[in-house]
Amino acid sequence: MESITIKDVARICGVGVSTVSRAINNHPDINPETKEMIMQVIKENHYVPNNSARNLKRSDARAIAILIKGISNPFFNSMIKVFEEEIQKKKYTLVLQHVDEWQDETEVALELEKEKRLRGIVFLGGFASHSEDQLKKIPVPFVLSTVSLLGEEYKNDYSFVSVNDVEESFRMTDYLIRQGHEKIAILCSSENDVSIGALRLAGYKKALESHRIPVEESRIRHMDPEVDTYSIKSGYKLTRELLDEGVDCTAIFALSDSMAIGAVRALIDAGKKVPEDISVAGFDGTEMAAYYNPAITTIRQPAEIMAKETIKLLFDSIKKKTKVQQLIFDGELVPGESVKKRK
Amino acid sequence: MESITIKDVARICGVGVSTVSRAINNHPDINPETKEMIMQVIKENHYVPNNSARNLKRSDARAIAILIKGISNPFFNSMIKVFEEEIQKKKYTLVLQHVDEWQDETEVALELEKEKRLRGIVFLGGFASHSEDQLKKIPVPFVLSTVSLLGEEYKNDYSFVSVNDVEESFRMTDYLIRQGHEKIAILCSSENDVSIGALRLAGYKKALESHRIPVEESRIRHMDPEVDTYSIKSGYKLTRELLDEGVDCTAIFALSDSMAIGAVRALIDAGKKVPEDISVAGFDGTEMAAYYNPAITTIRQPAEIMAKETIKLLFDSIKKKTKVQQLIFDGELVPGESVKKRK
Repeated sequence: MESITIKDVARICGVGVSTVSRAINNHPDINPETKEMIMQVIKENHYVPNNSARNLKRSDARAIAILIKGISNPFFNSMIKVFEEEIQKKKYTLVLQHVDEWQDETEVALELEKEKRLRGIVFLGGFASHSEDQLKKIPVPFVLSTVSLLGEEYKNDYSFVSVNDVEESFRMTDYLIRQGHEKIAILCSSENDVSIGALRLAGYKKALESHRIPVEESRIRHMDPEVDTYSIKSGYKLTRELLDEGVDCTAIFALSDSMAIGAVRALIDAGKKVPEDISVAGFDGTEMAAYYNPAITTIRQPAEIMAKETIKLLFDSIKKKTKVQQLIFDGELVPGESVKKRK
Repeated sequence: MESITIKDVARICGVGVSTVSRAINNHPDINPETKEMIMQVIKENHYVPNNSARNLKRSDARAIAILIKGISNPFFNSMIKVFEEEIQKKKYTLVLQHVDEWQDETEVALELEKEKRLRGIVFLGGFASHSEDQLKKIPVPFVLSTVSLLGEEYKNDYSFVSVNDVEESFRMTDYLIRQGHEKIAILCSSENDVSIGALRLAGYKKALESHRIPVEESRIRHMDPEVDTYSIKSGYKLTRELLDEGVDCTAIFALSDSMAIGAVRALIDAGKKVPEDISVAGFDGTEMAAYYNPAITTIRQPAEIMAKETIKLLFDSIKKKTKVQQLIFDGELVPGESVKKRK
């Protein structure tokens, strides 16, 4: 029998979840009669409080770590929320660890595993090209989430969940071309990047080539790996540089929604209208992009499904149900208001 | 002697930090000559790699936990970044733990402390009205960061870092009134909230009263604590409701930047212009608000300084240098493009 949840208790009592929580936790700010009613319902329905505090008690050695490369990407936030819920459902503890851009996440993982006796690890973002040696040292199951691996040699050795970055980037570039844009600038990661940034740049080039449009190097704007991330600020800066150098383009494709927002704002500050004067497209499908003015045309990655599948894959590995598995999800082109068809 | 950092090594070698990192971590994708040069510089300058992986090794039992109420507030992100840096400087490990809106963070803290043998705790956000009993049980130093305490009885017992929420909200409301707005709607937290939301609402009322403007209940829009947070979605929803009910107002004051952005978007979707038809103000001073179109007029909380002082206060307590201390910082009204003066 599935036990009832705090939400069920709240519904039965006709009160809010927070009120039930106050009753359970003996808070002073609750009407004594309401409290009595709630405790009665809890008793009758055999409700077992199931919050992380109580989970922690019995899950000392059952922790899953999420290693996040770069905190500023709002795309990750929607995934983390799902990770927390799914891991809690399994009665495991979640350890969140941020990893700096220049740090080696495999090394951080190895140390963390020793200290916290982890049962599994999720690598979120990052993860360029780690040596096989380094990856093989990790003694617990792990899944690479929203990480694309470049080398074919990795393909069958590790579990990962991602979109096809080349294809999705191709999809957006192809869309822009079909909207009449040929001079498309791209705001991408650093020149040495070998991870998702490189794959998305490859998709951009592939789309141009498929339409026989020459690739113009001045339209490819790389971030500085020392100071830039996939952030609003980087998008602003790279677009400012495009404008200052007078690079000829009718559309800008930014490899994250945050960068797209920075690009739009830089254009507005330069007295240009989006999309009337210049079109802007993003990548990720964040809430922020949908609520921006203009709403950003973007590639939506199915963040929640990807997060759920990441945890499923990880627990399948922990329970030895499966060995490694690779899940590639389709992105979706979400038209906003930031791209205009050219006649 | 202060030891040199990875950035210094990079500068001396004329390469990027990531290249130095690759050299240290024996990555395959680095030119062997570059690597040799870097290792030589490291040796000559007695550089000791100092990343979290290595820190973890020697800091088994030296962890600080940050308990975050609500992940969706981008205001916290800028603070977390600073927490990570400052805690790393002290060679402690950081444990990040998110707490659901309805959960009791003191209870989560107590369990976490037992499990991880924490040396200190930062409560970020949340923290309405916890009983003294509950707070007194926490056996390690803690600081309440960006948390306002309502009860006078708490004032001298706990360390906290915040702005004066009543005053800052007064500042913004007073500003709107001086811009010619009398009919100001406010998008705030739930009716039962006794934390920062309640304080900011009090500041709004105080400003209206100081200008002898009657407080109109229909202009006070409360979020539903079961589903809403200080998010873009909540701002959108509450503004939609204002419009649907035909509430008469010339300005909307949202108690977070995220809500302000949701409000602007709802107005745009209803065919209204911001600020020409209606003005919108926010609270927090996030990057997102500065880059929005129109840029949001807001109250900037000095996030980085507050984060630094939080850690300083915590370590002063850990080292028994000070007992409790309360630090109240001034916010700053940052005019954007979203508020128009009425004639």
